[in-house]
Amino acid sequence: MRVTSFPLKTLRDAPSEAEIISHKLLLQGGYIRRVSSGIYAYMPLMLRVIEKISVIIDKELSKIGCSKLLLPQLHPCELWEKSGRWEGYTAGEGIMFNLRDRQDRAYGLAPTHEEVITIIASEIINSYKQLPVCYYQIQTKFRDEIRPRFGLMRGREFIMKDGYSFHSTESDLKIFYKKMEKSYENIFKNCGLETIGVDADSGAIGGAASKEFMVTANSGEDSILFTKSGSYAANIEKAVSIPKESKPIKEFEQTLIQTPNQKTIEDICKFNNLDATQIVKVILYLGEFEDNTKLPIAACIRGDQYINEIKIFNLLNNIYDSKLINLSKIENKSSINKNLFGIPMGYLGPDISDEIINKNSLWEKQWFRVVDYSASKLESFISGANKINVHRYFKSWKSLDNTFITSDIRNAQEGDFISKDKEEALIEKKGIEIGHIFQLGQKYSEKLNAKFSNSDGGLENLWMGCYGIGVTRLAQAAIEQNHDNDGIVWPIQIAPFNIVLIPTNFKDPIQKKLSEEIYIEFQKNNIDVLIDDRDERAGVKFKDADLIGIPFRIIIGRDAINNQVEFSSRSKKSNIKVSINNILKIFINESKLMYN
Amino acid sequence: MRVTSFPLKTLRDAPSEAEIISHKLLLQGGYIRRVSSGIYAYMPLMLRVIEKISVIIDKELSKIGCSKLLLPQLHPCELWEKSGRWEGYTAGEGIMFNLRDRQDRAYGLAPTHEEVITIIASEIINSYKQLPVCYYQIQTKFRDEIRPRFGLMRGREFIMKDGYSFHSTESDLKIFYKKMEKSYENIFKNCGLETIGVDADSGAIGGAASKEFMVTANSGEDSILFTKSGSYAANIEKAVSIPKESKPIKEFEQTLIQTPNQKTIEDICKFNNLDATQIVKVILYLGEFEDNTKLPIAACIRGDQYINEIKIFNLLNNIYDSKLINLSKIENKSSINKNLFGIPMGYLGPDISDEIINKNSLWEKQWFRVVDYSASKLESFISGANKINVHRYFKSWKSLDNTFITSDIRNAQEGDFISKDKEEALIEKKGIEIGHIFQLGQKYSEKLNAKFSNSDGGLENLWMGCYGIGVTRLAQAAIEQNHDNDGIVWPIQIAPFNIVLIPTNFKDPIQKKLSEEIYIEFQKNNIDVLIDDRDERAGVKFKDADLIGIPFRIIIGRDAINNQVEFSSRSKKSNIKVSINNILKIFINESKLMYN
Repeated sequence: MRVTSFPLKTLRDAPSEAEIISHKLLLQGGYIRRVSSGIYAYMPLMLRVIEKISVIIDKELSKIGCSKLLLPQLHPCELWEKSGRWEGYTAGEGIMFNLRDRQDRAYGLAPTHEEVITIIASEIINSYKQLPVCYYQIQTKFRDEIRPRFGLMRGREFIMKDGYSFHSTESDLKIFYKKMEKSYENIFKNCGLETIGVDADSGAIGGAASKEFMVTANSGEDSILFTKSGSYAANIEKAVSIPKESKPIKEFEQTLIQTPNQKTIEDICKFNNLDATQIVKVILYLGEFEDNTKLPIAACIRGDQYINEIKIFNLLNNIYDSKLINLSKIENKSSINKNLFGIPMGYLGPDISDEIINKNSLWEKQWFRVVDYSASKLESFISGANKINVHRYFKSWKSLDNTFITSDIRNAQEGDFISKDKEEALIEKKGIEIGHIFQLGQKYSEKLNAKFSNSDGGLENLWMGCYGIGVTRLAQAAIEQNHDNDGIVWPIQIAPFNIVLIPTNFKDPIQKKLSEEIYIEFQKNNIDVLIDDRDERAGVKFKDADLIGIPFRIIIGRDAINNQVEFSSRSKKSNIKVSINNILKIFINESKLMYN
Repeated sequence: MRVTSFPLKTLRDAPSEAEIISHKLLLQGGYIRRVSSGIYAYMPLMLRVIEKISVIIDKELSKIGCSKLLLPQLHPCELWEKSGRWEGYTAGEGIMFNLRDRQDRAYGLAPTHEEVITIIASEIINSYKQLPVCYYQIQTKFRDEIRPRFGLMRGREFIMKDGYSFHSTESDLKIFYKKMEKSYENIFKNCGLETIGVDADSGAIGGAASKEFMVTANSGEDSILFTKSGSYAANIEKAVSIPKESKPIKEFEQTLIQTPNQKTIEDICKFNNLDATQIVKVILYLGEFEDNTKLPIAACIRGDQYINEIKIFNLLNNIYDSKLINLSKIENKSSINKNLFGIPMGYLGPDISDEIINKNSLWEKQWFRVVDYSASKLESFISGANKINVHRYFKSWKSLDNTFITSDIRNAQEGDFISKDKEEALIEKKGIEIGHIFQLGQKYSEKLNAKFSNSDGGLENLWMGCYGIGVTRLAQAAIEQNHDNDGIVWPIQIAPFNIVLIPTNFKDPIQKKLSEEIYIEFQKNNIDVLIDDRDERAGVKFKDADLIGIPFRIIIGRDAINNQVEFSSRSKKSNIKVSINNILKIFINESKLMYN
């Protein structure tokens, strides 16, 4: 392609809206243009990156027998009502853009396609003999984000690959899920990216198991914990670990300890010669369920550890029949005044009394008490005495009359071990989620009545998995992982072009002729070649080539008359003189190295 | 690909919703599935057709230097307000789906992209030196059609290729428009379609010139008129021709002719021994303008000819400064009673008096009198005497005091000649519009303030063209043109697969082995091959293969043991025995024939 044909329009300064480097470089390099909040045009360079990623995805998915299709973007409300998601996605969280047509029928702009594909599968699949089958598409999705930001990372209109598999048994689903996991690893490797696959929480999508694929990058919004050997990796929502050991605690003579104004763990340790591992802190939450139950929760954890709210959320959902819809810290003063009597904040103990719950409150009248393993394993410990300015020495958990649920409700931390043998410790990195795979089970097929006849002749709900890749997000994450001070340094696999030809003076007939000859030769060999045919100074062309990040470069300058050009690599910044007879061979050799 | 992987689900009976054969076959063959009114899922077979068409488009457009990009589908209201189209597309005609986001900002779901691309071009292009440039995309578009029907022909969510070119001069626009015209011809030819390019009316899009590309098919909604030699082609809205000659009229002695109850041309001819070419009929219209002017129109045309309302519409728009927004026949009784006195319907003459327009009416008080050339060329003629049951002999137009505008306001007809030498007569066919190209001029750049500095250093509005292809419509039109009683007969260029392998009994190990060998061999040679690996009766497989219309077929049956198979073509229904050593060669030869 010719630079003059798109035409290239780079910006000298980064637009002020760009908060992270990849967003800045996409705008500066003319890859994307903002049309509205969270809504971008993909300019020719960007579309080439998207198409390269798409081809890599297509290739890998076809290997495991997936079929590509294209589902509509406008979804009738009735379909989402069947799955029970219409209200939550529109009036509720408001994530789904929605509209009414000229007949006043409601439609949503699809953020995801479980409903549509499940209905279609139910119409096509009658028998277990037709299974398994996996459909996928690469398509624009919509999300009315509360705070669109970071360019394509959290946009309102973006491109995803979403796939859906259907199975006759749970075990077949699990087998296919493993295949897809391997496929995802290949896809990201073939895109030239360093990624980590982590165990993840299934969250709102539901299902038995899920895994996220993260591009490691400092600007990532997610925390990943993993071992150096790769034996374990999970995101922070899901990660489990063994916390460091607690220090033994000396026996206290008196049970009550005066701790005036010592509201933080730090203060208590300092003034009483204690270690944070010897303290149990109690944090209060309120769980709100679909059936309107409001459950007050007292969560106990060791003083040096941190609560993982997702784990509490999932625990409650597992224990109770009704669906938990919200979990929030009890910290709002008016809510406390209304529902609790004289709560001694900063001095809470695990045996906080049920009596302090106001009889007229709409809350349940008993604390749901949950203790993290880090706390439950302590023989003796210090905690609040449920009285302002007083802590207490608890000789053992057994001495308490209350009922406690013991569970893992703790964030794993860097440095924690993954097993008792203490051989492998966790490392923490920031990551950008670019893929997510789920074992959905029968959640959607049950709601949408998608059945098949199984091998026993009975009707059964389809077993289902779903598999997403954020295509535009992946493209931007690749920049987050691959850039320098001069601009983008694309992995060659997804670069818009493999090589750029830069005649330093395109008006010079010798340079022009040689440039065009090389251009044609590279095109003939099916190499994605760009020629900077602008009537611009060489410096401008070099700067632009650095910014847009094409992996290789041929400079056609004064030595053109001797059939000599310069060849260089964007990442290595090396520069060698080459006779034009060898230029194709050198490029092929160098780019092969890069593919590996 | 394997039939079991998608899986193929054909229907025995055509769904009742399908009105035309192509829609019926798409549903029956499992190409598409209806999700809502005018909204379809493109199943794997269909997506392959769409992708083949897209590749053909990409190849041709890149040859003339077009750059592919992808623009957003959600457009902020402000952008369409700038071009003045928001109201008309939403509250007005209601063609554009629209919604409000969580911040209560209005957005439209794009049916077309002139606004977005013009703004982007205005940001990128500063100087005439950067021109010309042409961007295009292949993307889902949305239209809230009043009556969605015919499957993908008039859907509410469909795929289009839309391109937009920018130029520094009008002449450069015209040169590029010609290139695009040629490119379109190549695209449709390369899709294996018979199309006719016709001069078309620019309509609501506006601009200097436009051309439509039609797939000829009996079910087409549009009428095309063309000469056998191809020297002339236009759609009926635009076509001009020379009507057949009128019969000479004898001089009448008395001026007034009593014609009781002879309200039709046919009756008048019959009872008075006249020919329809000797009569002038007068039809009344009301034109409503943007500035609220309501203009009564008396349109005169020869008795055997028909009024072309588009031509009247364009004529008025050319003459008057205000924009004509509606043109309708005056036939509503209450409107007639309110605005006109005793109008002698069926007996109207060209000299109908201005006096009959009610002084209290909001209409203009003078008829706009327009005479088609077919009528104006008549020396003497018969027309209404503006009195019930009376016609009149008009000795000449000159004898009338009224002012007449003479213009072409007539539909061309089959059999009309295109020039006075009477060498070429018009043929009429029905067609399906699949492409449309426009010279837009400066219409959008002016409204959106998209300027560049021209070669004289002055600021000038960009010159612009736009170019559409209905991709999903083209796919369906191809079926309308290529089918038989058994199903679709795809042109090989856009068929989802080039060839299908049908083992008559896939459980037979010899057949299975041979089928898989041929499958692998064809795949290795980059041939799009489908294998029907179902455990189904041969009859079912043959029927499905006929229905889905794959151009070539290899049947692996009992002769597999002798390494012999049968080779046949979908269109010719020929059947030959072939040794498997020759099968690839035979396919390549036969398919080459089909590509030509």
